[in-house]
Amino acid sequence: MEPLRVALLGCGVVGGEVARLLTSQAGELAARVGAPLELVGVAVRRAGRERGELGFDAGLLTTDADELVTRADVVVEVIGGIEPARSLVLRAMEHGAGVVTANKALLAADGPTLFEAAAKHGVDLYYEASVAGAIPLLRPLRESLAGDRVTRVLGIVNGTTNYVLDKMDSTGAGFAEAVEQAQALGYAEADPTADVEGFDAAAKAAILASLAFHTRVSAADVHREGITEVSAADVRAAQQQGCVIKLLAICERVTAAAGEAVSVRVHPAMLPLSHPLAQVREAYNAVYVEAEAAGQLMFYGPGAGGRPTASAVLGDVVAVARHRVGGGRGPGESAYAELPVLPMSEVVTRYHVRLHVADRPGVLAQVAGVFAQHGVSIETVQQRQDEAGRAVLVVVTHAATDAALSTTVEDLAELDIVDSVAGVLRVEGGDDR
Amino acid sequence: MEPLRVALLGCGVVGGEVARLLTSQAGELAARVGAPLELVGVAVRRAGRERGELGFDAGLLTTDADELVTRADVVVEVIGGIEPARSLVLRAMEHGAGVVTANKALLAADGPTLFEAAAKHGVDLYYEASVAGAIPLLRPLRESLAGDRVTRVLGIVNGTTNYVLDKMDSTGAGFAEAVEQAQALGYAEADPTADVEGFDAAAKAAILASLAFHTRVSAADVHREGITEVSAADVRAAQQQGCVIKLLAICERVTAAAGEAVSVRVHPAMLPLSHPLAQVREAYNAVYVEAEAAGQLMFYGPGAGGRPTASAVLGDVVAVARHRVGGGRGPGESAYAELPVLPMSEVVTRYHVRLHVADRPGVLAQVAGVFAQHGVSIETVQQRQDEAGRAVLVVVTHAATDAALSTTVEDLAELDIVDSVAGVLRVEGGDDR
Repeated sequence: MEPLRVALLGCGVVGGEVARLLTSQAGELAARVGAPLELVGVAVRRAGRERGELGFDAGLLTTDADELVTRADVVVEVIGGIEPARSLVLRAMEHGAGVVTANKALLAADGPTLFEAAAKHGVDLYYEASVAGAIPLLRPLRESLAGDRVTRVLGIVNGTTNYVLDKMDSTGAGFAEAVEQAQALGYAEADPTADVEGFDAAAKAAILASLAFHTRVSAADVHREGITEVSAADVRAAQQQGCVIKLLAICERVTAAAGEAVSVRVHPAMLPLSHPLAQVREAYNAVYVEAEAAGQLMFYGPGAGGRPTASAVLGDVVAVARHRVGGGRGPGESAYAELPVLPMSEVVTRYHVRLHVADRPGVLAQVAGVFAQHGVSIETVQQRQDEAGRAVLVVVTHAATDAALSTTVEDLAELDIVDSVAGVLRVEGGDDR
Repeated sequence: MEPLRVALLGCGVVGGEVARLLTSQAGELAARVGAPLELVGVAVRRAGRERGELGFDAGLLTTDADELVTRADVVVEVIGGIEPARSLVLRAMEHGAGVVTANKALLAADGPTLFEAAAKHGVDLYYEASVAGAIPLLRPLRESLAGDRVTRVLGIVNGTTNYVLDKMDSTGAGFAEAVEQAQALGYAEADPTADVEGFDAAAKAAILASLAFHTRVSAADVHREGITEVSAADVRAAQQQGCVIKLLAICERVTAAAGEAVSVRVHPAMLPLSHPLAQVREAYNAVYVEAEAAGQLMFYGPGAGGRPTASAVLGDVVAVARHRVGGGRGPGESAYAELPVLPMSEVVTRYHVRLHVADRPGVLAQVAGVFAQHGVSIETVQQRQDEAGRAVLVVVTHAATDAALSTTVEDLAELDIVDSVAGVLRVEGGDDR
């Protein structure tokens, strides 16, 4: 059997590992595919850069990615970012190559362009590594659950923020201190913005929601809040509630006034310790999927790192290569449902609100009155003193629209008896959701 | 687009649900496949039987399964057992139909015959529902991890036994009492043999090992021990050790004297509470997979039941149907590695041994001497009194071959100072494994 030509775009942590595994497992991969996989080139930005042990013939390095993608059966894109990745992937498909990419930013920003190109040229487009690293998640969503109706995806899909929040929870550290620790250990980048502001998770949420609900959802459709405002006091408050704070990517199929819709959002939320996602520690990822027939599923594993991500990439390479050998193609884009994306204001959530209040009778009545005015039902109220001796009122609501909840909080801040709103967090994973 | 003809063999709990979902989700399934799925017949043993609400046209019922399989594009087999399921599946493939089956017993007994027939006739054979119900597990193993080397699969794959062991753990009930509870709640059958003796889990272990290690493994290759000998005292002993007892399906890639081999076994084992599988309660299933590049993954969900199993079946139906529309086939059997299956005696495990001993000095020295004679290293020893005031010695070993461990236990039973061997359990999921 003729070897299948594999071109690699990018040779960073993931790319280097992909090249190494392609070479070291050549015999096994050939047996699984039915033909050998031959690495025909590795496109890099600068040819002269010091790279250490390569694990493949240095003669394969090239700075001419445009040329490389025209002479491959499978193109693996692990450059990241929008350009030149998009142009190269489109060019590869024009030339008849199947594409495997780990590029969540590109997929979430401009997925339909890629899917349409794949359909037009009759080639595969696989991207398992773009969400949750090695955890098989996209294939289960687009294939295993293809006969079911997914109702909800709740995921911890960013390892950096999970590491930071886990440290805050276990050590009592503040946000800045926990980020420094994460940076020192290589869990956070020097500029952690993409992670801590939720951009990375929002891109992944868009990809998950698109697959789960057969609807085009882009990163721009995702309501996004990061974890930079989460304080040590918030973490303590969560603990007092029997909860932990996680940055969640939430994709829900909801029934709105105008019919079915989807809600896609990324924000920190309190989760009860009894929820399976609450136990996900350090930089691990986990995704909880609810489907009408399947029930509740959970997928857990390492969400990042060179080797786990390379494992996901290679699984996709084998899939594309098998199609080259045996014919056929993987499933294309499925966006027939075209469900509208609900604005955040209409999404139904629950709030946990901490107020510093005046220490006198009648406070609770006034506060409860504001909730009632907005039609927000209160689940629990606790009155206590904080470490500084200030009177604190902690209110957990039942489910209400985010608009009603946020207006309630605005009005509470206006009350004379409210000194300050000390914290507001959404609550997820409760029994009434 | 011409409708694709789906024939259903069997109309029990799973079959009925498959038929219902095929009908109720017809529009969505057509959009996902690219062609409508038409249920063309449902084969049952007795036509006249009372079936309640069918969810499909009763005129589709037929007792002539032989005829039905000749006029379908996709045949769904949910009869179970070896015959007539095997003959019908083979006949369906001869007539060019793709097959979706949930039949673990058939696959584990005679998988290669089915795979060879699928290859010969160029048709699909999918069987996600045969292991762990709705949990996407076989597709991840045969596709997502196709570029990786799986080293270990550790699974709770039988809901009945997990329910029984969980009740014993949480209530202190004995085995017989817990089985009665499980039967009363529908978690165990009137004759629970297939579950409690580990036959069901052994069939699943064979399927998992075949996929994980690209090697033919049949149910006959699986070392199997059930949970009928697990006592309330064993459960208490596990608790005292910070462990819980689970019936595990264990598939490992091992390096034996003669080279690489696989170990495939089903037996009850103590698991530390810190292990992710220890938290799997009631009738849930979960499977832990270790791969060289991916690291540690876990899949969790409902392992049985009509709707979850139907979800898995329909995912496979969509896959087969997509191939009918778009061309190509799913991955066939991958058994190139042909690794030998290690006999249980050579498998390396750890033992937890409880002995009733004479209450006098020198006992520990004699007991330790027997372990030493067989080259078995001891990790911990505890001496204590049980509720009846008898002296009990609890020994947990380091890893050794099962032969050395079981001979050690035989010799211990011969010692004068050992009144009885009160319990022997293997220990899994520790740090040194």
